[in-house]
Amino acid sequence: MKKLINHPDDVVRESLQGMALAHPDLLNVHFDPHFIYRADAPVSGKVAIASGGGSGHEPMHGGFVGMGMLDAACPGEVFTSPTPDQMLEAAKMVNGGAGVLNIVKNYSGDVMNFEMAAELAYAEGIQILNILIDDDVAVKDSLYTQGRRGVGTTVLAEKICGAAAQQGYDLKQVANLCRQVNLNGRSMGMALTSCTVPAKGSPTFNLGDREIEVGIGIHGEPGRQRIPIQSADEITEMLALSIIEDTPYTRTVREWNGDRGEWVDVELTDPPFQNGDAVLAFVNSMGGTPLSELYIVYRKLAQICAQKGLKIVRNLIGPYITSLDMQGCSITLLKLDDELIKLWDAPVKTPSLRWGI
Amino acid sequence: MKKLINHPDDVVRESLQGMALAHPDLLNVHFDPHFIYRADAPVSGKVAIASGGGSGHEPMHGGFVGMGMLDAACPGEVFTSPTPDQMLEAAKMVNGGAGVLNIVKNYSGDVMNFEMAAELAYAEGIQILNILIDDDVAVKDSLYTQGRRGVGTTVLAEKICGAAAQQGYDLKQVANLCRQVNLNGRSMGMALTSCTVPAKGSPTFNLGDREIEVGIGIHGEPGRQRIPIQSADEITEMLALSIIEDTPYTRTVREWNGDRGEWVDVELTDPPFQNGDAVLAFVNSMGGTPLSELYIVYRKLAQICAQKGLKIVRNLIGPYITSLDMQGCSITLLKLDDELIKLWDAPVKTPSLRWGI
Repeated sequence: MKKLINHPDDVVRESLQGMALAHPDLLNVHFDPHFIYRADAPVSGKVAIASGGGSGHEPMHGGFVGMGMLDAACPGEVFTSPTPDQMLEAAKMVNGGAGVLNIVKNYSGDVMNFEMAAELAYAEGIQILNILIDDDVAVKDSLYTQGRRGVGTTVLAEKICGAAAQQGYDLKQVANLCRQVNLNGRSMGMALTSCTVPAKGSPTFNLGDREIEVGIGIHGEPGRQRIPIQSADEITEMLALSIIEDTPYTRTVREWNGDRGEWVDVELTDPPFQNGDAVLAFVNSMGGTPLSELYIVYRKLAQICAQKGLKIVRNLIGPYITSLDMQGCSITLLKLDDELIKLWDAPVKTPSLRWGI
Repeated sequence: MKKLINHPDDVVRESLQGMALAHPDLLNVHFDPHFIYRADAPVSGKVAIASGGGSGHEPMHGGFVGMGMLDAACPGEVFTSPTPDQMLEAAKMVNGGAGVLNIVKNYSGDVMNFEMAAELAYAEGIQILNILIDDDVAVKDSLYTQGRRGVGTTVLAEKICGAAAQQGYDLKQVANLCRQVNLNGRSMGMALTSCTVPAKGSPTFNLGDREIEVGIGIHGEPGRQRIPIQSADEITEMLALSIIEDTPYTRTVREWNGDRGEWVDVELTDPPFQNGDAVLAFVNSMGGTPLSELYIVYRKLAQICAQKGLKIVRNLIGPYITSLDMQGCSITLLKLDDELIKLWDAPVKTPSLRWGI
């Protein structure tokens, strides 16, 4: 393993120290427990938006802390869920009296710990709602997940909910919006290479010189199939059609009822994409893939969307939800309406996503 | 070789097609000859800022075309200089009557072709000035260069000169500013791994499992030394001290005198960094290195700058001038004054650098 690190045990802490040194105008970092929070937190009267998960997916989530996006991010160790005390302390720090929305990627450890944090916060008088992101169409159930995994739509939900909170939506409105974004977003990824977790020091899995993994998870979990390398156009078509032609997916999720202090089962179904839909197209690098290749993927994706009657009205292209040094990409399509477009376009100022300010 | 491409011959063209599809609000792409130009070009009365070079360094340069930065970018094939006709046609397209500044990285092929373009444009009545960027302290003379190579400072010069042109600086003022940025910027890079050029299909060079190349060029040219892997702190210290302690570097460059239509030799010397200087610190990924590792490098760089009495007042952290999928990083320090800070902070709207708008 060759990496720009000191000791594997210090990767997360030192990277956070670097962020704190680099962006004091935008964010602060709290250590032990670790969390990143907006420099001006708490913002009085504003719903706070928080997220978290294992490290190794940077810039998600810490790179999205700032005005118009996240109030707090809780990083676990690499590919390891953060703990409930991180989430609780982060919630206390950023709660401006209007409650906290946690955007939770659907991985068993994350879900369990964010649920525990919501209960702990409730006991301390802080209203937390958790909304699950489970947008990965590749597989149902996987190594770390029951149901679909949470991937690229998370980034879009954080931007859109962050803007909504900034504009004064209340907690239930932001939670409803987040649920809407999740139900209207679908993703799928692929890997050309594995990634190497610092503490392990060797590749997470092995792919042959001419093999790719289609439907990979962001921790290198197995996908739909391992196949010989294909052209960028063929790969893009596989991912895009899996997303566009995905049929309605119904699942039951547990949501916290903050008024009654109890968990409620909610049944949710994704609406399918339809001819004429306006979409945001997000082409994401898994970390090690050059930007030039993402544009080759985008080129084909734009052609496919045009053929399928999907109108790309916004896009995002680059490394936003990564898997360390993995080469590969993911595609996310999110159906937009006027409200989502307005929220997407709203000003944002974070280390890794910024415009309008 | 596994890449997200179709055919190696089509990489540049298809990537440009993707950019055109993704960013019609910001830029257009002209094919045969290839160049990217601002969607609203020519901007009447504004000095046009152009650059170019081999592809494979994305987002540089095409990702920096847009309001407040470049008017045009001329991409060659991967790691291959663009041709004079690309530069000439681009200049004709973006010249708003106030002339064109070409920001030229110091590689023999680029220099020769940009010189030829300046002469051709002069014959057609377009004023072009070329300013060389030669900021790489690692080596003097290398595989593709006489004198120091042009690397990270290029990105900063493009931003700062783009802002100046937007604010109404005339051609000579922008050229002087660009020269100032170059003289006050110094860089050095290192590689953990090689990169793979699509047309070649195998790594450009070989590094052992425990070896790194310090002082690498952006095409994988040899650097100062090949040494066993070190910690991120040790590597950062090697790069940072080479930059900070670099002694004044004097060279003679050829500059075009647009009034007289002739080349003039100009002797230029870099001022050294001094205790108390305000600097912009730029930590750049060579392409395949995760953002989390760049922050570990930034952490140590900030400590070293503090020890040396350099005050980091602005920073840029991410993949901006890359070498395809190479793992590694480069550091650039640019001495700032109030004028440069104001121009750095000015609004910019390009695919890969955006704020304030």
